[in-house]
Amino acid sequence: MTTPNRTDPRLELINTARSFYQKGWMVGTAGNLSIRLADGSFWITASGRSKGELLLSDFVCIDASGKVQASSIDVKPSAETAIHQILYTLFPEAQACYHIHSVESNLVTNFTPEDDLPLPPLEMLKGLGVYADNPSCVIPIFANHLQVSRIAAEIQQRFTNTSAQIPALLIRNHGVTVWASSPTAARNYIEIIEYIFRYMVGARSLGI
Amino acid sequence: MTTPNRTDPRLELINTARSFYQKGWMVGTAGNLSIRLADGSFWITASGRSKGELLLSDFVCIDASGKVQASSIDVKPSAETAIHQILYTLFPEAQACYHIHSVESNLVTNFTPEDDLPLPPLEMLKGLGVYADNPSCVIPIFANHLQVSRIAAEIQQRFTNTSAQIPALLIRNHGVTVWASSPTAARNYIEIIEYIFRYMVGARSLGI
Amino acid sequence: MTTPNRTDPRLELINTARSFYQKGWMVGTAGNLSIRLADGSFWITASGRSKGELLLSDFVCIDASGKVQASSIDVKPSAETAIHQILYTLFPEAQACYHIHSVESNLVTNFTPEDDLPLPPLEMLKGLGVYADNPSCVIPIFANHLQVSRIAAEIQQRFTNTSAQIPALLIRNHGVTVWASSPTAARNYIEIIEYIFRYMVGARSLGI
Amino acid sequence: MTTPNRTDPRLELINTARSFYQKGWMVGTAGNLSIRLADGSFWITASGRSKGELLLSDFVCIDASGKVQASSIDVKPSAETAIHQILYTLFPEAQACYHIHSVESNLVTNFTPEDDLPLPPLEMLKGLGVYADNPSCVIPIFANHLQVSRIAAEIQQRFTNTSAQIPALLIRNHGVTVWASSPTAARNYIEIIEYIFRYMVGARSLGI
Repeated sequence: MTTPNRTDPRLELINTARSFYQKGWMVGTAGNLSIRLADGSFWITASGRSKGELLLSDFVCIDASGKVQASSIDVKPSAETAIHQILYTLFPEAQACYHIHSVESNLVTNFTPEDDLPLPPLEMLKGLGVYADNPSCVIPIFANHLQVSRIAAEIQQRFTNTSAQIPALLIRNHGVTVWASSPTAARNYIEIIEYIFRYMVGARSLGI
Repeated sequence: MTTPNRTDPRLELINTARSFYQKGWMVGTAGNLSIRLADGSFWITASGRSKGELLLSDFVCIDASGKVQASSIDVKPSAETAIHQILYTLFPEAQACYHIHSVESNLVTNFTPEDDLPLPPLEMLKGLGVYADNPSCVIPIFANHLQVSRIAAEIQQRFTNTSAQIPALLIRNHGVTVWASSPTAARNYIEIIEYIFRYMVGARSLGI
Repeated sequence: MTTPNRTDPRLELINTARSFYQKGWMVGTAGNLSIRLADGSFWITASGRSKGELLLSDFVCIDASGKVQASSIDVKPSAETAIHQILYTLFPEAQACYHIHSVESNLVTNFTPEDDLPLPPLEMLKGLGVYADNPSCVIPIFANHLQVSRIAAEIQQRFTNTSAQIPALLIRNHGVTVWASSPTAARNYIEIIEYIFRYMVGARSLGI
Repeated sequence: MTTPNRTDPRLELINTARSFYQKGWMVGTAGNLSIRLADGSFWITASGRSKGELLLSDFVCIDASGKVQASSIDVKPSAETAIHQILYTLFPEAQACYHIHSVESNLVTNFTPEDDLPLPPLEMLKGLGVYADNPSCVIPIFANHLQVSRIAAEIQQRFTNTSAQIPALLIRNHGVTVWASSPTAARNYIEIIEYIFRYMVGARSLGI
C-alpha cells in the first residue's frame, strides 16, 4: 500500500480533495471522496483527516462485498462509506463518488420541506446532462440521521423506485453527493452543482 | 499543431482560462475563449474540456469561412463557435472574444425582462471606454436558445441595427461575452464587467 | 531563539497564520495564535505583525507563570496574551489556542443581545464533538473591553461556573477563539466554526 | 531606470499590487499605488496597466514639484496622480498612498448622501489607530468628478479645514484611498478598511 500504481486512484483523490478544500467545500475534515476500480473495490478517504493535505496512508480500500481490503494502521474508513457503497450498487456505471459540504449546499436544503428541490433553468444544467429549452429539473433531498446506514437505506429505497434525473443528491444540512462514470466527470458535476447552489442562494437573497 | 509559435495564441488562452477558472467563472467545462489571427482564422477552446487545465490539444482552429482548419483527433469546437464567428464578423477590429459563466452574470440577467440592462454609474466604466460624469450605460441581453445558431442570428440582427455601447453582451442565464482589439483588453473587459455585476448584485441585495 | 527545533512550534504557527491570513481571517495584523509546550510555557504571535508573512522572530515565549521567557528585541507579546493564558489555565488539556477575526464571526455576535448564541443543527457540528440527531448547541459571547484583562477575567468567571459545550467563544465585534488538544484540532475547529458562521450569515440573509 | 536599488520601491509596489489584484481590489487596470522617497519624489503605477503583472517599466517617478522625473517610453502616470500628490502635501509623514476599487468600497459610498460615513465600533479599528471602548468614527466621502484635479482640490480644501480622524477617504463609486508612514502600514490600513466595508455590507444586508 506504499507506492501508488496505475490502478491506484489515491493521487487523483489527494489532488481533488486539496482543490475542494481550497474552495471551502471540505473544511475541518468534512466530506469524503471515493473512486471505484475495475474489480468492484473502491478507495475512499479515511475518517477525520484534513482534506487539504491527505497522504497516501489516509485512504481505505473497500472490496466489492463491503469489507476493508487494505488500509494503514489506525485508519478508519469514512463514516459515510455505506452511502458510497449503495450508490455504486445502484449505479453500476459509476466509477467515482464525491461528497462535500459547502455552505450553499446546506442552505438550499432549507429552501423546501419537500424531498425534491427544483433547480433554476440555467445553461449550466447542460453539464449535468440536461438538454432542453427552459429545463425543468429537481434534485432529491434526504433526511439526515445520526446513523448513516439509515440514510443509505433511504437512498436505496428511493432510487429503486424512482430514477435519478441528475447524478446528485442532497442530505439535509449535510452536503451534496454526486456520482459519475469517471473522476473527471465527478469533479465537473461537483463544480456545476455548487455553481447552481450559489446561484440559488443569490437569487433567493435578491428575491428573483 | 504540437508546438506553439509566435502566431499561436493557445498558450495565452490556456493561461487566461486557468485564471478565469480559478475565479469561478469557467467551472465544470463552462465557457469558451477565442483569439483571432491576422489571416482571419481564430483558435477556440474545444467542447467539454475543464478550463482549469487545458492542453495544447484542447483547441480548434476555425478559418475565416467558418470551417475547422486544424484540431486534434476527437476534439470538437465549442458549441458556441457560431457566436464567436458572428462577433468577429460584426466587429472587424476584434481580435479576442471571451465567454464566461459567473454566478453574478446569470443573476443580473434576471433583473429586467427588457432586452437591455442599465449599468450603475461606476468609475470602473472608464475601463470599458465610457468617459462621462455620472455615465448612463446599458448592456444588451439576448434570449437563450438550445440552438446556438438562433442566438447568433439574433446577435447579428441586433448589432446590424444598433451599435454596441460597450463591447459586451449577456445571454439570459447563460453568461457574458466580451470582444476586444487584443487579448489583454478582452481580459480587462471581463474583469471590469464582472466587477460591475458583483456590484449590481450587492447593491440590489442592499436595496441601494 | 534562532533555529526552531522539534519542540519549537513556531514553524507550525507561521504556516497556520499564513493560511488563515489568506482566507481573510487575520488581515491587517489582526488575531493571535499560540501553542503550549509540555513544560506549560507557550509561544504566541507578537503584537502588530502581518500574519501572512510571520518570521521566527515574530513570536514570544510565555512561561507557565505568565512571564516573557524568550523574545526577539523590540517584540511585544500579543495584547490578548491574557486570554490565551486564562484558557490554558481553565482547560489543562488544551495545547493550542487560536484567535481570529473573520467578518462573519463579528456579524454573528450581533445576532443576539444575550450572552449565548444558538448554533444551527448542522452535520458539521460533529467536528466540534457534538454527536446528536438535530443537535442543540450554543457558543458563549463575551463583551468586548478596551482592557483585555477585563475580558480574560469574565472568561475565567464564566467557565469556572459553567462548562463549555464546545471549545470556542466569541467576543462581541472582536472575533472568535478556539482551544484544542493539538494544533491540528485547533485548526479544524477554526475551520468548522467559521463554516457555521458563514452558514448563519447566509441563512439570516435568506430568512431561513 | 532598469534595475531597482535599495531606494527604489517598485518591487514592493509590484508585489503589493499583485496581492491586491488577487483579492479583487485592482481588477481591469483599476487603482494606483505610490511610495514616496526621502527626497520628496514618489513612484506611482502607470496608467492602464494590469495590476496583477506589473513590470519595472510600468511606473513613473514624480518629483516633489509634481513633474515627471523618470519613466519608460510610452508610459503615462496614473490619471489620479494629482490625488496622491495632494495627500503627500497634506500629510508630510505619509510615505505611501494606496488607492483601490473593491466592490464593497463602492457599495458603502451609497449608504449615505452625507459627506461622512460612520464606521461600526469594531475591534479592528484599533489597527487604524482608534483606541476606545465602543469607538465613534467616520470616514470622509468625496464626490466623484471626471476631472481628477477637481477631486484633488476638494480633498485639499476639506483636510485643510478639518483633520482626518483615520488615514483613509472614499470617493463616491470610485474606491478608497489610504496614506501611511510606511508601505507596510499602508497595506495594513487597506486590509483593515476593506474588512470594515465587508462587515458593513454584510451588516446592512442582515438588517443589523
